[in-house]
Amino acid sequence: MTKVIMHGCNGKMGQVITGLIAQDEDVKIVAGIDTYDEKKNDYPVYKTIRECQIAADVVIDFSNAKAVDELLNYCGEKKLPLVLCTTGLSEDQLAKVTETSKETAILKSANMSLGINTLMDLLQTAIKKLAPAGFDVEIVEKHHNQKLDAPSGTALALADAMNEAMDNTYSYKLDRSSERKKRDAKEIGIQAVRGGSIVGEHEVIFAGTDEVIEFKHTAYSKAIFGKGAVEAAKFLKGKPAGMYDMHDVIRAE
Amino acid sequence: MTKVIMHGCNGKMGQVITGLIAQDEDVKIVAGIDTYDEKKNDYPVYKTIRECQIAADVVIDFSNAKAVDELLNYCGEKKLPLVLCTTGLSEDQLAKVTETSKETAILKSANMSLGINTLMDLLQTAIKKLAPAGFDVEIVEKHHNQKLDAPSGTALALADAMNEAMDNTYSYKLDRSSERKKRDAKEIGIQAVRGGSIVGEHEVIFAGTDEVIEFKHTAYSKAIFGKGAVEAAKFLKGKPAGMYDMHDVIRAE
Amino acid sequence: MTKVIMHGCNGKMGQVITGLIAQDEDVKIVAGIDTYDEKKNDYPVYKTIRECQIAADVVIDFSNAKAVDELLNYCGEKKLPLVLCTTGLSEDQLAKVTETSKETAILKSANMSLGINTLMDLLQTAIKKLAPAGFDVEIVEKHHNQKLDAPSGTALALADAMNEAMDNTYSYKLDRSSERKKRDAKEIGIQAVRGGSIVGEHEVIFAGTDEVIEFKHTAYSKAIFGKGAVEAAKFLKGKPAGMYDMHDVIRAE
Amino acid sequence: MTKVIMHGCNGKMGQVITGLIAQDEDVKIVAGIDTYDEKKNDYPVYKTIRECQIAADVVIDFSNAKAVDELLNYCGEKKLPLVLCTTGLSEDQLAKVTETSKETAILKSANMSLGINTLMDLLQTAIKKLAPAGFDVEIVEKHHNQKLDAPSGTALALADAMNEAMDNTYSYKLDRSSERKKRDAKEIGIQAVRGGSIVGEHEVIFAGTDEVIEFKHTAYSKAIFGKGAVEAAKFLKGKPAGMYDMHDVIRAE
Repeated sequence: MTKVIMHGCNGKMGQVITGLIAQDEDVKIVAGIDTYDEKKNDYPVYKTIRECQIAADVVIDFSNAKAVDELLNYCGEKKLPLVLCTTGLSEDQLAKVTETSKETAILKSANMSLGINTLMDLLQTAIKKLAPAGFDVEIVEKHHNQKLDAPSGTALALADAMNEAMDNTYSYKLDRSSERKKRDAKEIGIQAVRGGSIVGEHEVIFAGTDEVIEFKHTAYSKAIFGKGAVEAAKFLKGKPAGMYDMHDVIRAE
Repeated sequence: MTKVIMHGCNGKMGQVITGLIAQDEDVKIVAGIDTYDEKKNDYPVYKTIRECQIAADVVIDFSNAKAVDELLNYCGEKKLPLVLCTTGLSEDQLAKVTETSKETAILKSANMSLGINTLMDLLQTAIKKLAPAGFDVEIVEKHHNQKLDAPSGTALALADAMNEAMDNTYSYKLDRSSERKKRDAKEIGIQAVRGGSIVGEHEVIFAGTDEVIEFKHTAYSKAIFGKGAVEAAKFLKGKPAGMYDMHDVIRAE
Repeated sequence: MTKVIMHGCNGKMGQVITGLIAQDEDVKIVAGIDTYDEKKNDYPVYKTIRECQIAADVVIDFSNAKAVDELLNYCGEKKLPLVLCTTGLSEDQLAKVTETSKETAILKSANMSLGINTLMDLLQTAIKKLAPAGFDVEIVEKHHNQKLDAPSGTALALADAMNEAMDNTYSYKLDRSSERKKRDAKEIGIQAVRGGSIVGEHEVIFAGTDEVIEFKHTAYSKAIFGKGAVEAAKFLKGKPAGMYDMHDVIRAE
Repeated sequence: MTKVIMHGCNGKMGQVITGLIAQDEDVKIVAGIDTYDEKKNDYPVYKTIRECQIAADVVIDFSNAKAVDELLNYCGEKKLPLVLCTTGLSEDQLAKVTETSKETAILKSANMSLGINTLMDLLQTAIKKLAPAGFDVEIVEKHHNQKLDAPSGTALALADAMNEAMDNTYSYKLDRSSERKKRDAKEIGIQAVRGGSIVGEHEVIFAGTDEVIEFKHTAYSKAIFGKGAVEAAKFLKGKPAGMYDMHDVIRAE
């Protein structure tokens, strides 16, 4: 049984994870941390992690960038493993994450879904076979109309994974409308579509001569990110200090 | 039987149309025009349309922008209907097309495929129903890696058709990566993917709350543009002077 | 303001609709009917519609086949318009629906989503243009792994709509694996995919020579069926006796 | 330089390969075999392989089942490697292929495209990760309206490859319309769509809880099968006796 402190327990993802863990016998939330506590959880909720004296195996964090500094201090001191899902961290904070991972196990991924991370592994194999055979690589991602950034962090992570597999020889092309020229073989085009309430769709296209291979991931709800975080928490329990990501979780299965 | 002069008969599309017409009892090529004549066609080939004295019902043109001026002069003088498929005309040439259409029937379309033009009609109906119900509209087009321009003329024509149906209240968004903001409801995003030998794929996405409707056209060969040109030629025979496009052909069927 | 009695208010769809109406100023639930009443709704809940004395403009029903007979009796007697969303009715019950529609307005559709019904209208136009041009028509639908029937009622409704537009000259092909022969031009293939928690995806494919046009509807949650039911309720208020469906709602907008 | 005898040189695929090899410096057709010889090839053409006395490194065969027996005898006797692309062989012939592979190298694959075979390798990795995580597997294939069999040999080969990776614990479901029941977790659904001139499209769907991963291969022309055959011929030159398939070609690259 993995005992979890849910950091950001009353946010949208905190509640999703609360629901998922309630149906999973191998894991339990022993305490929640949130500045607001209107919702009635089955576990005690504290305003800050410092106030919480309950023993746990791992922290799952879906809070906000502001709350992350104190969380890192705490986990470093207590040698408490941390599944860090909050995004939008500053350069300084990212450096602090690396620093803290010398004291305790920290898992951080661009996307927490098991599906996306499995796909990422397959794409690294795919590009190594298909690029030498003359296939061009393009990415199209689709998200809801409230999303501020484009392209998505996940689309960039997919591109980075493929680029890494090709010794970082590719550049990214985010806009083709501003120039008039043929496509360069060593580029990955990344296009962003926005509309409605689309949760998240990522399509990677390998286009060759007279044949096209497409890999597509569709998210139907944010629950998949919560599910990945729960699997990550189980995996991280008892792990030695260091940086981990979802690929470690997948490969361990 | 529609008698056709094939202008640009030895180019790629000229030969595709030659092949299509050979299998169609209702239409016949009586002469071809091309500066090069290595290929053995079953019809006489002249270097310029001025040299050709053979009577015809209509000219199909798939040549190049340079050859179009003299072609327009000729068709205007002879009152000879013209299916004008050459793209990349200058502003002056476009004005001349309009002028010439006072003398003879001219058919000109952004895309000659029957499928794309049928889709365009349906999209005008679709946006009038779906936009008021809160659906966002986006277009993704895919073409081969030798294409110079982006987005494609067909993608812009699809956007224009929908925009026209909504009283031109939409603007087009060609790049989302250069800013950080929520999507505006009155925009149509248009994204271009380039790779391999993709002939042409156009996808129009209506994204609403918890539902998405997609309309997608895939071209498997350039023969579909030739087929549309042949249908256009049959349609244009005997028509009075004026500007026509593929929608007139579809609606007549 | 449209006053609604929610019949089956504590079922899954009843609760979805309760949530949707809470955010819509033009409509209000004045009473709910359900045999179970554990949930705390903001409106009074009765075990049967007979017990409910509250005046309303329309009933929305998402209950079960057993409860429908008494509901039809009641709505017929009271001349109370009914949005009937329960599926799986017997032949006898369907006859009773028709009978009752002589007394009051009844709206019944294979699929309550505005998107699907808009698509259905477009498909009737599409097949009339594309079938004579030699396009073959096929449907692929995808649903979750708990669904018992195949193909889905919505896939059949899409096929019926297209077939009706072609004077019912098509037959349906549900399995191609049991024989070895070429496709017949006058058939609509309907294929069913089952897996995971897919809410519902319907793709209609028009395949011609060297070009394919696809129309695809993806549902991301069952809320879209509730949203359609609420729009239907607003539409049905004050309508004369008779049978209606979602197409009437769409065309009225 | 690989010297090739093209067996079935005047058929559709024989001519495609003739065109491909003409543009490839590493391979050359030294002789063709065909009962008909109207076309003017740049190489000598013989009615049967027995009549051909020209030395070669490998035979590419795209002929018909009748011609295969004599071809196998010849290649076995001469220890001449054979890329065997003719399909529809009888049980007896398949046994003879195995027998002959004791004398010479024979390469035989359900699908000659490099893309499909790369995909097949990836799918074996994918199913081993995704099936244990609860993903259901389905295949949809699309082909032209003249195809007699369903599902396609390639769809079955994709299913077999995945099934093999799972220790053959899956059964195949070719028709869901004839029964009323929930999907079984240990089945792979395979659906066939037929229409127009679709060259070949194969989509493998992994459907999980709230997420779907799709792998899709689209063929735009039969040239991809020819291209695979040419690569196979280069690979097979000088190889020891035995059975090979396209996966060996891919893995060697």
